[in-house]
Amino acid sequence: MHPADRFSSAIAASHSIACVGLDPRPALIPPELVADSLSRHGDTVEAVAEAFLTFNRGIIHAITGHCAAVKPQVACYEAYGPAGMHCLFETIRFARERGIEIIVDGKRNDIGSTAEHYAQGWLGSAPGLGGKSLPGWGGDWLTVNGYLGADGIAPFTGKAPTTTGIFVLVKTSNPSSGELQDQALADGSAVMEAMARLVQRWGQGRQGTCGLNDIGAVVGATWPAQARRLRELMPDTLFLVPGYGAQGGSAADAKAGARPDGSGILINSSRGIIGAWKEKTYAGLPWTDAARAALEAMNKDLE
Amino acid sequence: MHPADRFSSAIAASHSIACVGLDPRPALIPPELVADSLSRHGDTVEAVAEAFLTFNRGIIHAITGHCAAVKPQVACYEAYGPAGMHCLFETIRFARERGIEIIVDGKRNDIGSTAEHYAQGWLGSAPGLGGKSLPGWGGDWLTVNGYLGADGIAPFTGKAPTTTGIFVLVKTSNPSSGELQDQALADGSAVMEAMARLVQRWGQGRQGTCGLNDIGAVVGATWPAQARRLRELMPDTLFLVPGYGAQGGSAADAKAGARPDGSGILINSSRGIIGAWKEKTYAGLPWTDAARAALEAMNKDLE
Repeated sequence: MHPADRFSSAIAASHSIACVGLDPRPALIPPELVADSLSRHGDTVEAVAEAFLTFNRGIIHAITGHCAAVKPQVACYEAYGPAGMHCLFETIRFARERGIEIIVDGKRNDIGSTAEHYAQGWLGSAPGLGGKSLPGWGGDWLTVNGYLGADGIAPFTGKAPTTTGIFVLVKTSNPSSGELQDQALADGSAVMEAMARLVQRWGQGRQGTCGLNDIGAVVGATWPAQARRLRELMPDTLFLVPGYGAQGGSAADAKAGARPDGSGILINSSRGIIGAWKEKTYAGLPWTDAARAALEAMNKDLE
Repeated sequence: MHPADRFSSAIAASHSIACVGLDPRPALIPPELVADSLSRHGDTVEAVAEAFLTFNRGIIHAITGHCAAVKPQVACYEAYGPAGMHCLFETIRFARERGIEIIVDGKRNDIGSTAEHYAQGWLGSAPGLGGKSLPGWGGDWLTVNGYLGADGIAPFTGKAPTTTGIFVLVKTSNPSSGELQDQALADGSAVMEAMARLVQRWGQGRQGTCGLNDIGAVVGATWPAQARRLRELMPDTLFLVPGYGAQGGSAADAKAGARPDGSGILINSSRGIIGAWKEKTYAGLPWTDAARAALEAMNKDLE
């Protein structure tokens, strides 16, 4: 199925446009999991990887059916070497088995022949020594940095839509995103608008039946005015919106880039959901219940 | 030692400004290694990972002392899942033990709090569950995409130089690099020049005794005129130059961005070295000898 159509179905079924960021960090792991992993593995990367995986499985179990997607942040796993990457692999597998849409947040980018390897790994399969097709990590979507232009993008998309898609960084949520992205071009628009026009061009003719493309855009919740402008430039593009909650974006800010009918956006929260057990609001709840309750509060806030 | 000074020493000791790209692909693996791995593991990711590692070790052994650095391309390993990443880890370890400078080509990028995890993983260490510092992959340098601005860069560099450094993408070697990077800004310069000015600003006061910063720039060999202009904007910046050889850049093109005294550049070749055994020029040589001979030819060509 066209990946944007799959999203439409997931949103309809879960009544949610929320995406839960699976960004585990030691400080977000509940004490009982920490103690358990330390006792078995000592203070090692193996302990971190085991605790992250147990934590992610609990979170995924708690939120399944109540959000549109999960978004593992690759950096959190890569920080712990091969053990961390194995944890990411198992996390994706666990989410896949539960049918949740998986956005791999890797912001990958390279020249064409190299981008091809990233595409094989994250969204497809790579050739074995004997010519067999070896499945990769199993993501449904991958975030991608478009600084290299079309031939760094094409390997991820192919000539026609398949079952996977990408989100290209257009306007990121961080404070210094404007240093390059807001610079004024000769025609009076900003660099991010140039990127938006590229995303719009790359997405031509790639709509699913829901009307959205398989080439989405990352547009931070922290810049609502820019999001409205970017929506004009990319009418058929699915926006992945980070920066809601912990980073400061309100529900209205996060929804600023929606299409006139309210569709076309996915709003991510990471710490706000997976770290809910640390918040006063959810004190006393088991960490899985806290995550679920925080997600329900987010869904309500976004209604 | 300041990482740029380490490079100066490596260049002086090896009489080479070459960097060898460790970008293994099944088609570049000699038949005897393919047969051996297939017989032990079947047509699996484990077979690929084992063959890549044996291949990389042979290449590293053959080129040690005759180049300034090695540059593993993360995508080639990521394509094969956790097994591929384990192979990358062991490749870096093998190179470290031989004292070769290691540039991890990952083009990583994210908002500050996330970039921190990439920095911990590739260039430093990450906190364990018990607070211990857990060493990561062990790279000396990491390539980074600067589209997110300063707060996506700062986590990699810290406030003052350490023993590691980064290379920020400024002008990439691929055909469509100009789609964004060449767009004209309001002041008449191009987007890549805006990126160059950011790199120059970020590098202020970060020189080693050799006069070069720990924040370098990626400037493709395929764009010599642009490289000369970018050198004007970044006088104290080490240029990592991909695109020589297989991608079409000549020695003169690749050296276009050097400083007036010829310093300040590192020129990468991947397929041209590691795939030399497939070339008619080196027919009959063992693949390790072919790599070494191709590297010597490259060094001569760059003189």
